[in-house]
Amino acid sequence: MLIVGERLNTSRKRIRRAVAERDEAFVRKEASKQAAAGATHIDVNAGTSVQEEADDLKWLVETVQSEVDLPLCIDTASGAALKGAIALTQKTPLVNSITGEVERKAEILPIVVEAGADVVALTMDDSGLPEDIDGRLKAARELLKELTDLGVQESKVHFDPLIRPISTNPEQAMLAIETVRQLRAEFPEAGSICGLSNVSFGLPKRHLLNRTYLAMMVAAGLRGVIMDPTEPAMMSTLLAAKALAGEDQYSMEYITAERDGRLQA
Amino acid sequence: MLIVGERLNTSRKRIRRAVAERDEAFVRKEASKQAAAGATHIDVNAGTSVQEEADDLKWLVETVQSEVDLPLCIDTASGAALKGAIALTQKTPLVNSITGEVERKAEILPIVVEAGADVVALTMDDSGLPEDIDGRLKAARELLKELTDLGVQESKVHFDPLIRPISTNPEQAMLAIETVRQLRAEFPEAGSICGLSNVSFGLPKRHLLNRTYLAMMVAAGLRGVIMDPTEPAMMSTLLAAKALAGEDQYSMEYITAERDGRLQA
Repeated sequence: MLIVGERLNTSRKRIRRAVAERDEAFVRKEASKQAAAGATHIDVNAGTSVQEEADDLKWLVETVQSEVDLPLCIDTASGAALKGAIALTQKTPLVNSITGEVERKAEILPIVVEAGADVVALTMDDSGLPEDIDGRLKAARELLKELTDLGVQESKVHFDPLIRPISTNPEQAMLAIETVRQLRAEFPEAGSICGLSNVSFGLPKRHLLNRTYLAMMVAAGLRGVIMDPTEPAMMSTLLAAKALAGEDQYSMEYITAERDGRLQA
Repeated sequence: MLIVGERLNTSRKRIRRAVAERDEAFVRKEASKQAAAGATHIDVNAGTSVQEEADDLKWLVETVQSEVDLPLCIDTASGAALKGAIALTQKTPLVNSITGEVERKAEILPIVVEAGADVVALTMDDSGLPEDIDGRLKAARELLKELTDLGVQESKVHFDPLIRPISTNPEQAMLAIETVRQLRAEFPEAGSICGLSNVSFGLPKRHLLNRTYLAMMVAAGLRGVIMDPTEPAMMSTLLAAKALAGEDQYSMEYITAERDGRLQA
């Protein structure tokens, strides 16, 4: 299971300030906290300032890598920013993200192929995010075919079903779950990954909805999650879900977490 | 979603004493507490004393019904005890349970049919609980056919996939989930129901595993749960899961629970 630590994102005010001020100590601490909490990848996103993005992202990559040894998830819609950042990575990065949209593909795809990177593939194309399962599966199939035709291994593609809030569209949560389940059945080598917190937008006790949804997604076969690993409720649910899904042999990871006082009922 | 309140079971020491002493006030309070917490059915089980079971169960039925207006779940392996208890119920009860075992069927089935009761159907037969999905589906199909041949409506049959501890057999949790999912696809009219706490037997922080498993089961289409509705973590997860599964219109039940201070993240 990939656990992409999402905290280093300039859409968070405190991170935006740290990046603007080039506060290395703060960013390093954010990275090491997430690694200690169980992240397998550290997400870096400097997308709030279009003008500064390329430079900010480079600085983030270098700063995080001076502190932790994990692969990075480079989170940008800009090909230029991606290209600069990817050149500085020490381990094969995960690029977040590509879609079936023609322009975005033209910009991002060659960089992914050249870097031999893993890539998050959103199940959407130029017509937007399809409203039904068949549309999402079709978008996923077409994007996967383009990637594999260019030599990207199926196992390096991580489908993201895109989560929408149930407050505006109650069927969306189950639709995304069913998308993950069917993609795993059809493409057993490919991965799947998503952020979950969108699902609870506009509702109270968001952590409760997010952790409940995480459990549902793991049962459906989700193979990666973009989350805050320092959030004890979410990590506790993830560890319980892995044990229940048979992805934690003899529940050793779960039992160790309990011994370390990291589980929260 | 059926919520069968499981507290009135003589396998719990405090309940055993209350039943032995015919402590009406205590039993009534247990019943009303569960109803207030959201139970749709109250389970009654006096199975710890073979000799007293029939009398104890009758007393339990009468006592609970003098307090709450909900249908009962009559939880016994004894035809004689079931027959006596069912005659005293005021609303159509849920009989827990029948299996494909020849002797058990011969004893329980006629009583269920005569009473027009709902029934919990365990997915097992004389060869025991099948180790694989196909065996469980086969046992379920055969039992359902016998029931419907005798005039029981499919909607009155609630399959129980039987939950086993992951500590002894890690694949069992997902196998039961897949059984629920496939039975719902094959028999959309039939219900499904189970107790969840077995899944965590032998492991620490059992509530965490139980609530995580509940979320997974609801996503797979589970339609009923035998649980302690006064347990805030479990009920919070159930309410969140219903909202996510599109079974709580506009999340009104979830939002109301939050307003009443009943949600626990």
